[in-house]
Amino acid sequence: MTTQHTEPLQLTTEEQAALGSGGGFTSTKAVGDVPAITLVDGSAGVRMQDMSQGADHLGLRPALPATAFPCATVMAQTWNPELVHRVARALGTEAQAAGVQVLLGPGVNMKRDPRAGRNFEYYSEDPYLTGVLASAYVQGLQSQGVGASLKHFAANNTEHERFRSSSDVDARPLREIYLRAFQRVVRDAQPWTVMCSYNRINGVPAAEDRWLLTDVLRGEWGFEGAVLSDWGAVDDRVASVRAGLDLEMPADRGRHDRALVHAVLAGYLSARQVEQAAQRVARLARHAKAAARPDTRWDVDEHHALAREAAAQGLVLLKNDDAVLPLVDAEGPLAVIGEFAVKPRCQGGGSSYVTATRIDVPLDEIRALAGEALVEYAPGFTTDAATDAAPDDPALLREAVELAARSRTAVIFLGLAGSQEAEGFDRTSIELPQEQLELLRAVHRVQPRTVVVLAHGGVLRLAPLVDHAAAVLDCGLSGQAAGGAVADVLFGRVNPSGRLAETVPERIESTPAFLNFPGENLHVRYGEGLFMGYRWYDARKLEVTFPFGHGLSYATFRYSDLVLEGSAEGVTVRLRVANTGSRAGREIVQVYTGVAGSTVVRPEQELKGFAPVWLEPGEEREVTVQVRREDLAYWHTALDRWVVEGGEYTVGVGASSRDIRLTGQLALTGDHAPVPLTPGSSITEVLANPVAAAELGELFGAAFGGLGDSQAAGMGLDILKMIGSTPVQRFLTSLGGGMGLARVQDILDRANAAVGAVPNGR
Amino acid sequence: MTTQHTEPLQLTTEEQAALGSGGGFTSTKAVGDVPAITLVDGSAGVRMQDMSQGADHLGLRPALPATAFPCATVMAQTWNPELVHRVARALGTEAQAAGVQVLLGPGVNMKRDPRAGRNFEYYSEDPYLTGVLASAYVQGLQSQGVGASLKHFAANNTEHERFRSSSDVDARPLREIYLRAFQRVVRDAQPWTVMCSYNRINGVPAAEDRWLLTDVLRGEWGFEGAVLSDWGAVDDRVASVRAGLDLEMPADRGRHDRALVHAVLAGYLSARQVEQAAQRVARLARHAKAAARPDTRWDVDEHHALAREAAAQGLVLLKNDDAVLPLVDAEGPLAVIGEFAVKPRCQGGGSSYVTATRIDVPLDEIRALAGEALVEYAPGFTTDAATDAAPDDPALLREAVELAARSRTAVIFLGLAGSQEAEGFDRTSIELPQEQLELLRAVHRVQPRTVVVLAHGGVLRLAPLVDHAAAVLDCGLSGQAAGGAVADVLFGRVNPSGRLAETVPERIESTPAFLNFPGENLHVRYGEGLFMGYRWYDARKLEVTFPFGHGLSYATFRYSDLVLEGSAEGVTVRLRVANTGSRAGREIVQVYTGVAGSTVVRPEQELKGFAPVWLEPGEEREVTVQVRREDLAYWHTALDRWVVEGGEYTVGVGASSRDIRLTGQLALTGDHAPVPLTPGSSITEVLANPVAAAELGELFGAAFGGLGDSQAAGMGLDILKMIGSTPVQRFLTSLGGGMGLARVQDILDRANAAVGAVPNGR
Repeated sequence: MTTQHTEPLQLTTEEQAALGSGGGFTSTKAVGDVPAITLVDGSAGVRMQDMSQGADHLGLRPALPATAFPCATVMAQTWNPELVHRVARALGTEAQAAGVQVLLGPGVNMKRDPRAGRNFEYYSEDPYLTGVLASAYVQGLQSQGVGASLKHFAANNTEHERFRSSSDVDARPLREIYLRAFQRVVRDAQPWTVMCSYNRINGVPAAEDRWLLTDVLRGEWGFEGAVLSDWGAVDDRVASVRAGLDLEMPADRGRHDRALVHAVLAGYLSARQVEQAAQRVARLARHAKAAARPDTRWDVDEHHALAREAAAQGLVLLKNDDAVLPLVDAEGPLAVIGEFAVKPRCQGGGSSYVTATRIDVPLDEIRALAGEALVEYAPGFTTDAATDAAPDDPALLREAVELAARSRTAVIFLGLAGSQEAEGFDRTSIELPQEQLELLRAVHRVQPRTVVVLAHGGVLRLAPLVDHAAAVLDCGLSGQAAGGAVADVLFGRVNPSGRLAETVPERIESTPAFLNFPGENLHVRYGEGLFMGYRWYDARKLEVTFPFGHGLSYATFRYSDLVLEGSAEGVTVRLRVANTGSRAGREIVQVYTGVAGSTVVRPEQELKGFAPVWLEPGEEREVTVQVRREDLAYWHTALDRWVVEGGEYTVGVGASSRDIRLTGQLALTGDHAPVPLTPGSSITEVLANPVAAAELGELFGAAFGGLGDSQAAGMGLDILKMIGSTPVQRFLTSLGGGMGLARVQDILDRANAAVGAVPNGR
Repeated sequence: MTTQHTEPLQLTTEEQAALGSGGGFTSTKAVGDVPAITLVDGSAGVRMQDMSQGADHLGLRPALPATAFPCATVMAQTWNPELVHRVARALGTEAQAAGVQVLLGPGVNMKRDPRAGRNFEYYSEDPYLTGVLASAYVQGLQSQGVGASLKHFAANNTEHERFRSSSDVDARPLREIYLRAFQRVVRDAQPWTVMCSYNRINGVPAAEDRWLLTDVLRGEWGFEGAVLSDWGAVDDRVASVRAGLDLEMPADRGRHDRALVHAVLAGYLSARQVEQAAQRVARLARHAKAAARPDTRWDVDEHHALAREAAAQGLVLLKNDDAVLPLVDAEGPLAVIGEFAVKPRCQGGGSSYVTATRIDVPLDEIRALAGEALVEYAPGFTTDAATDAAPDDPALLREAVELAARSRTAVIFLGLAGSQEAEGFDRTSIELPQEQLELLRAVHRVQPRTVVVLAHGGVLRLAPLVDHAAAVLDCGLSGQAAGGAVADVLFGRVNPSGRLAETVPERIESTPAFLNFPGENLHVRYGEGLFMGYRWYDARKLEVTFPFGHGLSYATFRYSDLVLEGSAEGVTVRLRVANTGSRAGREIVQVYTGVAGSTVVRPEQELKGFAPVWLEPGEEREVTVQVRREDLAYWHTALDRWVVEGGEYTVGVGASSRDIRLTGQLALTGDHAPVPLTPGSSITEVLANPVAAAELGELFGAAFGGLGDSQAAGMGLDILKMIGSTPVQRFLTSLGGGMGLARVQDILDRANAAVGAVPNGR
């Protein structure tokens, strides 16, 4: 799929139109010699509907068994592109076996607000981390001859009114935050398809946004695949095809196909556009069918083991006071509390829901690893009650507290029930159920060695919890092998190395989009601009409960000897990292950059590189992280392109966004990016150009020289500050002596030419 | 000026065009029988240039002496419309004497960010307080036959790039925050003129914004006067006249007059529009000249006394530990520290700068009231050094500390120098000079009875200061009598009663517009939306150093017996307030409202009424505050009009926004405001309409009834939550069985008629 075939289709316009919409809920149509292909959900597992039970138009029928890998949130917490690549390869194998040609993932939307209902399907609040991991996913999946679908394109950050809501985003946050991961994945991994989202962007439906689907995606980024719609996102197929959409999903009974043909006949849609869309679908289908290997077999146990490995790497040890973890079996009886220990919650609800091949039960897995230790269980609460049904029997709490009191350690499983977070709606709070917090406090009162294990899709407020636990292990939704992975980490079979891919805020009122989420009257104003996630907490100097990038290990690591080296490709960051602990472990070296004295508003620091490093006890290694020059660019709104500014860059290297261990400075030469002067440019801007200053400086002096500075100073005024922002045209054509506009423009033209400023920026 | 005269002008188009631009820097032209009038700056004092020294094109020549009243910030801190009215009458008298027909004030822009350079010319961060006080100003001024100019219209909230910057504001904050004070003043006080601002609003220059200058200002609000431009704000007079601008200021050498005539002759501007503008200018000029009383005389001493009264009422006692204030003369020697005590800063820089008739020197005024007490002075620092010039001699600090140590009490004058804040530029920080803070700490270390007196135009960060002072008295820029007013309050001749009209935040990073100010690439995104000022700190649950509405008294007050009563006009709030202290004093009773469970995003509480109450010691009185129903409305973005929503309103009454003493609830019936259903309405919206539900309910049931809820629940899904937001058109024309759009529209038409929903909302 890396070259653009343009072989003409031997199809009528009707047939071309037919190719552009689904044949069923999860398939395209076979038209002429173009085969039908199957596309199903699957960022965390292959969701192939069991056709023996009949399909339905919402895709809600049971699916065939498949491995439920950790959701994207947990995969992101591994900070491990190699592992993501391996999991995606496994997904590709399962897809091949199921006769699936395209898996509808990865989801790379930014987690703008912790309440967004679909956050578990996305990686992070950071576009760089997301882009790197999603690229690995696409490469891994497509290496198996199965296509990816990069979604949901774009700025799809709420479930509230998702079919109609407009994400109103300014140019810089749109480019630097919300489109940046898409851009990286398209460039680095060239997914077979991109899926446009339901929402509007600045008022324009994504499915009808030519700027987005054609100018940016294909023109600027070089996307070569097919654009398909999210299921049911197309209202006006003519507008969509005109915008660059190739495939409407799912089937629509031919209604839109006919509209397309009518539009061509009536002359308000060019036949070429319909053909182009059909060509792209045909190319996708042929390529996919050619790569199909329906006789593929895969090993359930092997994939389960991979799911366990992935889950274990994605668990984040948030807190571990007095080294209460790992548990040592000889230490005495262990209390396991919380119904999630026997009814685990390990995946999110909605279109990504997978029929798992098996589910590890945490209690069983703990027992399997507990050795001689007595393991006793008390539910403490029911997961039904977590859904705000009738409160639990108070006896449950008493029983759990008594168990905890007589044990050496208590492990308490808390979390959200599936009905509290799923596709289709947003959460209204980020709190754990009050009942669970009360149970925790009661347990902790009698048992200081209390370990909390959390299951949830979206970020939770942990401030009310952290003081009532010696250790906190965050599992997110870790898939079918979560139970085993938790046991592995609790008992030290795996040294935890996951790192948060999202900030845990002190409270919902501190979150960046708090007052602009989920919007009203079908508009969401992205008022926080660039300052989403850790960028916000850093800029506003807000305390957080756990910062972006945070995660503990059973080992400790030392950073030293930072060396920075600039080149045309970017910045090479070299340092040494040593394992100063007594266990082997994985450290995630994180690289953040910033520019002091930037000419534009910029976050203090942004993640621009990272490297997972495996170190034996006592081992020390040199680590190299390559920061791409293009990742240092900001979106220049006047020139409408990326610009790397010159200046002194600060590079911070550390174990989290708020645990920077080494800092260095490096001067970089900026891109040549002069903004063309126009008659609307200010006097200050014009005087900064040597040619214009030479021609006009005297005129300015003559006009204002007469005003003694002392006169102005007496009024508390700085003349230059007052006058400097005047548009030069306003000054020259009136105050400045009535110079004609043509003369002004002529001077500015020569001034622009002198510095190579190009109108329109490219 | 309350009726619309439309007598035809006996003027040619050329003459009409000539009427529409200035005759000089501060005057219009006499054309035909239309007289010229004079318009000068003057919200805090009449700034009439001394023509004997020649005028200039920036208006920087010395002005004739006039009373420098407190700036708008301090006038707002009085929370006293009666006093504002009296000061405005005095301004009117001085204007009449100076031959001035229009004073260019009041400025009613909202203080969106404490760094905005011109904040001292504006009242508050709250549109209600601003609107009430500015209405009193306009009524007071115009009662003297001198016109007001309501400015700067609109959303002019930064000096940075003020000529070119676009204020990008969404509809609700624009209406509910940034236009609301303008609306109130136009309706309540009908100013003779409105001055459009330099900036753009959502990309459109205010001077060319027909929506703003005509549809809203005249159409919706009923403005009957003339619209003039800020000085030099007109780029394209044809576009401006088309938008509804009547008078371009200042003189432009006839260039734009000719352009206007040319446009009429060329046929792209209607002669009627030019005539209408000329008529409005003519009406203003004739009316103003008829009201002129050039033989008016005024008493310098009397106006100075009024300035002193106003300043004293506007001073805010922020802190007063252990009743260190008022000072008692018998208590011993008094140290006065800080050069501001002898070189007071009492007004802001820029076009509002007044040549004061005299300046009270604080040190002299303190000595005059100190009685037997020895008063000694040490500068401590020089105000020159405050401007970041060379640091002061360390001997100054030593001398001040020694003086403080041997005194009974130290009064230390701190503040910003004039060059640190003025029209034409914004501040980049809200810090006091570090040197002053160091001096304060050194003084406080030896003298716990340290009283800080502050002079500044914009809000300062006070967190580093409050722990190093027993009392803090905030003077803002209190005009020429500030020195006397400070002495009055220090010695208890006046019981302080000013209240903050702006929040004092903990730090700049906590302020609402912090990351969106002053914007870049000529755009300022008002990303905080409605949540400006206390609305922000409340919603985000942020600590503040001093809340909006805060101010101490030498007396104490008790609130009781709250009674709320609703009517068609609004809410009548009745309560009893008692002076429980030993001194007579003025309490400002503040009324805040909120709506629990609002259907739209709303601030928790908003100021909607207040009443200053004078109480003798031991006196108790009933206080009545009338809240207008229209003030409870929010801007309905779908209907594009104000709507009062029905529901349970909370009314909080107290001494500041964070010192609510009494709270009551009142149910109000909402306006009838159904939103018309369209084919784009969601299934949830459609099913909420009884007619539509009856006709379409079955169809929805048939489509989704087949999906057992248990099936969906197994996937963690809530079908209604997923489906409810689907546009009804998308559902009905495809999933729902291919119903034609005409049939859908017919059902919706009947559904709309049944509930009286009117398309377009009016």
